[in-house]
Parts: sequence; C-alpha cells; structure tokens
Amino acid sequence: MELWFSEKHTDHCLFSVKVKQHLLSEKSIYQQIDVFDTEDFGIILVLDGFINVCQKDEFIYHEMITHVPMASNPDIKSVLIIGGGDGGTTRELLRYDTIEKVDLVEIDEAVVQTALKYLPFTSCMLHHPKLKLYFEDGVNFVNEKNNLYDLIIIDSTDPIGPGEGLFTKEFYQNCYQALTEKGILINQNGSPYYERDALAMIKATKKMESIFDLVKVYQYHLPTYPSGHYLFGFASKKIDPTAHLDADRWNSLGLATKYYNTALHLGAFALPNYVIDLIK
Amino acid sequence: MELWFSEKHTDHCLFSVKVKQHLLSEKSIYQQIDVFDTEDFGIILVLDGFINVCQKDEFIYHEMITHVPMASNPDIKSVLIIGGGDGGTTRELLRYDTIEKVDLVEIDEAVVQTALKYLPFTSCMLHHPKLKLYFEDGVNFVNEKNNLYDLIIIDSTDPIGPGEGLFTKEFYQNCYQALTEKGILINQNGSPYYERDALAMIKATKKMESIFDLVKVYQYHLPTYPSGHYLFGFASKKIDPTAHLDADRWNSLGLATKYYNTALHLGAFALPNYVIDLIK
Repeated sequence: MELWFSEKHTDHCLFSVKVKQHLLSEKSIYQQIDVFDTEDFGIILVLDGFINVCQKDEFIYHEMITHVPMASNPDIKSVLIIGGGDGGTTRELLRYDTIEKVDLVEIDEAVVQTALKYLPFTSCMLHHPKLKLYFEDGVNFVNEKNNLYDLIIIDSTDPIGPGEGLFTKEFYQNCYQALTEKGILINQNGSPYYERDALAMIKATKKMESIFDLVKVYQYHLPTYPSGHYLFGFASKKIDPTAHLDADRWNSLGLATKYYNTALHLGAFALPNYVIDLIK
Repeated sequence: MELWFSEKHTDHCLFSVKVKQHLLSEKSIYQQIDVFDTEDFGIILVLDGFINVCQKDEFIYHEMITHVPMASNPDIKSVLIIGGGDGGTTRELLRYDTIEKVDLVEIDEAVVQTALKYLPFTSCMLHHPKLKLYFEDGVNFVNEKNNLYDLIIIDSTDPIGPGEGLFTKEFYQNCYQALTEKGILINQNGSPYYERDALAMIKATKKMESIFDLVKVYQYHLPTYPSGHYLFGFASKKIDPTAHLDADRWNSLGLATKYYNTALHLGAFALPNYVIDLIK
C-alpha cells in the first residue's frame, strides 16, 4: 500500500508527501491534529490539513522567528509566545542565558501534548523552569497587560481557524500595551506568492503599521510551506532590526545555528520589488 | 473531467497543478516537451516532466540570472547564453542599450519553436537584430573560443538529460577561455534542499572553484521549482558581485523590475549557514 498526505496550497495546486506511518489522527476542541512519519521530511505535524511543523526544516522557521529579534535587541529578558505549542520557538529562546522568563500561551493543550509525545526535537524545552505554560486564548491573555514583555512572538497558524483572533487590530493594540519601551513584536506573516496568502499578509501588515512606530517584513525559505517563500513581520516601538543589529555582539554568544547568521539577518530584510509593492 | 499535472520533486514528494488545457505534447530529438495552460500559474513549459518556465513566476528566474551580473559589471557588451531557448534571459538582457550582441546556443530548436508559439511573454525578443541564434550543443560551441564574451549565462536544465554536458569541468574550462578579462559566468545551480539537488550543486560549485578566481552562490525564491529555494552560481576572473556592485549606476538606468533590486542583489549573497556548509 502507498499512503500519501496532500496539502492544498490553493484550490488548484497540491503538495503531496509519501507517508511511512500515520502516527496520530485526533480531533481536539479546536482543530484536527495529525502526525505523520514521512520518507523525505521526518515527522510532520499537520493542523486542519496544513503542515505546521516539519522535522526536516523546522529549524529555518524557529531560528528566523527567534534570532532576528534577539540579535536586534540583546537585552531582551522577558518574552511572551502566543501559539507555538510545538515548543520550537521556546527551544531557540532558551538558548539565551540572558532571558529570564518565557510565557507561552497556547489555546490548544492538545498541540502541546502531541508535541511532547511525537515531536521531541521541538518540545525538548517545554519543561524548562524559566518557561510558564498557559492554555488559554492569547487574545484574552494580552488584554490589560502593561509594559511586561520585551518581546512578543505570535507563532500562529494562518488567519483561518483557531488563530483568527490573532490577526485583529485590537489584538495588536493590546500587544503594543503589553510591550516594554524597547518592545518588539514578531508575527508569522504568511507568504506573498499565492493571492489569498498575499491579501492576508497585506492586511496584517497594514494593521501593524497603524499601531507600531516601526514595521518591517523579512523573508526566509521554508520549502514545506506553500510557495516556500515565507515572511515574518517585525514591529517595534524603537528598535530597528537592521540599523540596530550588533552583529559582533550576537556572534560573540557563540550560538550554533543552521540557517540564521547576521549577514543573512540583514539580507532577509531586502525584499523583492513585488513584495515591497504589496505592502506599500 | 479534472486534469492535473504532477512533478516529482523527489521519489516521495509531488507538486501537482490543475490544468485548464494541455496545449502541446511533443517528443523532440532531445526531450519530451509539454505545454499546459493552468489555473494558478498561467502557461507552463514542461521539459521531460519538470516545470521549466512558468508564466506566473518566470520573472524571478530571468531577472535574477540577468541583472545580478549586469549590475556587477555595467560595461558588459557581449553575451553568450547557453540553453535559454524560451527567450526569457534574452528578453531581460536586451533591455540594456549597452549590450551590443547576444549569442544564444540552444541544443533543441523545438524549445525555441515552442516558445515562439506558446510563450510570447518570454520569446518576445528572439527575433531582435542584436541576437544570433545557434541550434547546436553549447559544449561544442564554446570549444576553442577565446576572449570573446564579457558574460556567459548557462541557462540550463538540471544535470540530467540534454543539459548533462553543461556540468563538466572541461566545459567550465572552455567557458573560462571564452570570457574576456573581466568575464563573468552565471550558472543555474539548482537547490540546496533535497539531497540529490544539493549534491549536484556542490559538485558544480567545486568544479567552478577549481577554475575561476572568484566563485559565489546567490539565492532566490522560485515557488514552482522544487523546494522554492534556488541558487545561481557567480564565477568570475575579477569582478566581485557584492564589492563591485555600483547600485547608483544600475538604479540610474531606470529599469523597472518586479523581483530584482540592488538591496536584494546584496541580500541574495547572504546564504543560510547550512548552504554555506554544503559548499565549504
């Protein structure tokens, strides 16, 4: 028997992966959760039919969501992750001795339980003493928080399903309040390539721009996400991720990375013209 | 009826595109040629089962293969394209008034005929007076040419099928001889992501390094090529594509581009660590 998992990148375009074993198929309160062991990509976590974490290339996503803000402001001590129940962002953050606490707010406890059981490569730090886990809606969590976090990372799915509330202006406004004076917000900002994704990216970026003093977008290559061309948003009160990058300071930490480096940090903010035009 | 074209990215991974119309299916002397009209990507040219040109994103490939060397040395006058029968690289090159002649050597005349009939968006300059078309093997064409071209672009398929000879050390050595003192060679250098592609990229880069004084690799996002993370090689006798970029001069030309810009030019050479490690 041959077993293939297919993800719809659009209604007219499919990405299919040969499966060695279907390890989990479970409906949580919030979403359909599947875990596959695959020939080419190792373990993949699939939420509502979309690849969320892939063992072969999750390092790209998790390094780029973490080290870009951390290198832009090495004084970050207090971090809030919204989403990110797989643990990959936590794993990268807790490599910094300077970080004193990480709050992780995941709406779906089943994602954390699944990651602990099937994705040890991302969930390995979810029991770390600096980490506090909250199983609740990130939208409520940030409400009425003031001046608490140096960095908020919105490590969310796309704006369909349980992640939808994480793409509203009210939510971004609450994040702004929850950030300290030098605060940075990073958001999973989709892809510029397929039309539906590009529209969501434009909308999120415009909302950010109406609230934050500085908003930039940076890109990375993630082969198992639709089109492989993915973006994070970088919004802040003061910090500029290119002008304020202190490459020597970051490099002096000696953190071994497989994707991120400080030259690529700068390069990632150099966007193609068509992407610049989309967000203009 | 639903018609889907599927491309094998590996033996265990497929990319499938819904087809509106199968416009051409023809076996030339060298390869199987198919043209599809598709829902998401417009017209696509498929050679031996692999997407070669896609209307939606060919601008990315053709801008990056052309404007990076042209901005690195704006004095380029004489260009040789090996492969490139679709005409896209020619189209971008002939936007420079400073270019005096372009020789295009395509082994398979059927590719040019197909492009002229079905791909007007790339083939539109194939009758330009500055262009001379040769239907022969590029490997023989460069043999015993001396000091003739300021730029050679190897606009080839992957190293399987008719493009195979374009990946040998002898061929690169002949290209070196055919180049002028400030000559630049650009080669389609595959992808670092899937193992087979990465091995081919490493081999080609090593061969270049044994011949050329300077060899660099630069990256771009091409969603319809396997993994979406693609590379070109930049090999030269003298010119350094980052140190010698004169951004003001290129920008003064006023060429409108959809992907390329001079900031992205520099950014494209900032590679992820895992790619740096592959070619080290």
